[in-house]
Amino acid sequence: MNTVANTGTPFAPRRIAVILSGCGVYDGSEIHEAVAVLYHLSVYGATAKCFAPDKPQMHVVNHLTGKPASDESRNVLVESARIARGDIQPLSELRAEDFDAVVLPGGFGAAKNLCDFATKGSDMHVDPQIEGVLRAFHAARKPIGACCIAPVIPARVFANSAVGVTIGNDTQTAQAIESWGARHLDRPVTQMALDTDNRVVTAPAYMYGDAPIRHVFEGIGRMIETILTQTQIN
Amino acid sequence: MNTVANTGTPFAPRRIAVILSGCGVYDGSEIHEAVAVLYHLSVYGATAKCFAPDKPQMHVVNHLTGKPASDESRNVLVESARIARGDIQPLSELRAEDFDAVVLPGGFGAAKNLCDFATKGSDMHVDPQIEGVLRAFHAARKPIGACCIAPVIPARVFANSAVGVTIGNDTQTAQAIESWGARHLDRPVTQMALDTDNRVVTAPAYMYGDAPIRHVFEGIGRMIETILTQTQIN
Repeated sequence: MNTVANTGTPFAPRRIAVILSGCGVYDGSEIHEAVAVLYHLSVYGATAKCFAPDKPQMHVVNHLTGKPASDESRNVLVESARIARGDIQPLSELRAEDFDAVVLPGGFGAAKNLCDFATKGSDMHVDPQIEGVLRAFHAARKPIGACCIAPVIPARVFANSAVGVTIGNDTQTAQAIESWGARHLDRPVTQMALDTDNRVVTAPAYMYGDAPIRHVFEGIGRMIETILTQTQIN
Repeated sequence: MNTVANTGTPFAPRRIAVILSGCGVYDGSEIHEAVAVLYHLSVYGATAKCFAPDKPQMHVVNHLTGKPASDESRNVLVESARIARGDIQPLSELRAEDFDAVVLPGGFGAAKNLCDFATKGSDMHVDPQIEGVLRAFHAARKPIGACCIAPVIPARVFANSAVGVTIGNDTQTAQAIESWGARHLDRPVTQMALDTDNRVVTAPAYMYGDAPIRHVFEGIGRMIETILTQTQIN
């Protein structure tokens, strides 16, 4: 096994795709979670590349008042670029063969812009571009990571494989997941859930809305470490 | 010395004010830096409260193209609320007596919305509300932290006290700082600079624009640890 000289981690260098869904918990990617993903990938010596769909957000939420702004429109890719410091590409350019794994941070953007769970609940559909990407990684036995509400996406896409995911302990969302034939695994905020058959790795993150940020980082750190471990298994 | 039972850190519980300047490196707070500040405060058992000026941003930059959007206007407080998950107050409500220290993350927002360094360089002025806040903390011998480009703000305000700050090793910015009578201290990205007389603690962060995020976190972690240590000295 190679080691990464400048980080001292046991992981061979990996390329990981991170799919963002905007910039801000109420209409985009949850910022702390997205940064926790990028931070832990860096800690473990992996190279992160960010992607996002080039399409309008479902809506724009004023994060001070919590209310939708009726007169504003923003683009998912353009806003996601704020988290990526401009280093981001349209989701249409993501090829599974170029990466060792893919990770979806949470935030309402995952449930509004990558699928329609926020409005449709258990009747939700996944954005076809996202579904295509996840199926390509799954078919190649490359790990798929997701945290917070984003695990509903692999749960929906791989329900027929009885995929196991965690969204913490939120009963209503867990019931939706189980209604598709997927399995929900209860986890505390500092832990992750690994489905070894499907190589899907998930963490609750801010599904525990009052969790301190250090606990969110701890759970996401475990998720990233497990994803990288899974990339080393044939 | 008290210890914080649930984190195991040696710091007594502290309340720290964090001043944001928008949401995104090119027109607001640098997101990774702001999250690194909040994360490390949480790790060390401190309570963070976010503040931002309730005023229009200097401009809005499309972070995908890097170009200003001529037809858009955003509010510093409203956009900063994205990083704070809605838990933020107007800067006008920040009272130094309620906090043990104040921290200013970087990003161009610090140089565009909290002062005008981005356009005026060494002729810059600091936003009067920001200057008032920093002077109140300084007068009370409470630490002031700043990273990336934000150290130009305490450098300008406390130039008469020959304050020492780091912005990494950027010659042009260092010359501006020295031209005011403040002192520039060269530091690598993983380190911080402490001025014990002024209790100003600074870190370079993304002044090293190509630094990996783990190095940015490491330097900011040292800055936060030092700020909290300073709060325990009379």
